[in-house]
Amino acid sequence: MSNQFDFVSVVKKPTVHYGGRSVSHVLKMEDGSQKTIGVFLPSEQPMTFEAHVKERVEITSGQCVVQIGEQGEFVQYTSGESFIVPQDSIFKVQCTDVVDYVCHFD
Amino acid sequence: MSNQFDFVSVVKKPTVHYGGRSVSHVLKMEDGSQKTIGVFLPSEQPMTFEAHVKERVEITSGQCVVQIGEQGEFVQYTSGESFIVPQDSIFKVQCTDVVDYVCHFD
Repeated sequence: MSNQFDFVSVVKKPTVHYGGRSVSHVLKMEDGSQKTIGVFLPSEQPMTFEAHVKERVEITSGQCVVQIGEQGEFVQYTSGESFIVPQDSIFKVQCTDVVDYVCHFD
Repeated sequence: MSNQFDFVSVVKKPTVHYGGRSVSHVLKMEDGSQKTIGVFLPSEQPMTFEAHVKERVEITSGQCVVQIGEQGEFVQYTSGESFIVPQDSIFKVQCTDVVDYVCHFD
């Protein structure tokens, strides 16, 4: 896997949630699709996010626990793994160290 | 000013300092130059950074106080303003709310 994305546009202003514990930038890919690239930082409580469209979140560094939907167990995902969030659902993320991720909207 | 950078490569892995209070991504521009795009988050103490080459730090959102070099006063910079850090020097940054910036190596 390449360590970089090429021929993309990067939106300068990041999306910041939870006082900076979630920071991401939008990438517009050459094929017209979009991704976000960002970090999750440690938080006392799980951070809740809304997915309006289907998302595939790829952990590129670190590890976190994730709950998809309102219920269900927290499952651990680590570098190289991905989880899929269905359209119009929420997910919760918690980590104890910095997590890097790429969110794909395929 | 455009709200995005076009035709760039984005290094996937961010540079994270101070437990995530400083997060940035390297952008490789079409002309071969590099920039970093990132955020500073509030910290109890000023965060110290080393500049090995001359840097121009453009605040794109928010405001912070900055000390350039080992001494000197802290000066406030706000959205739209830039400060220049000479080669082989340090600078200190502190903010009370999220700051977005672009670092230029011109």
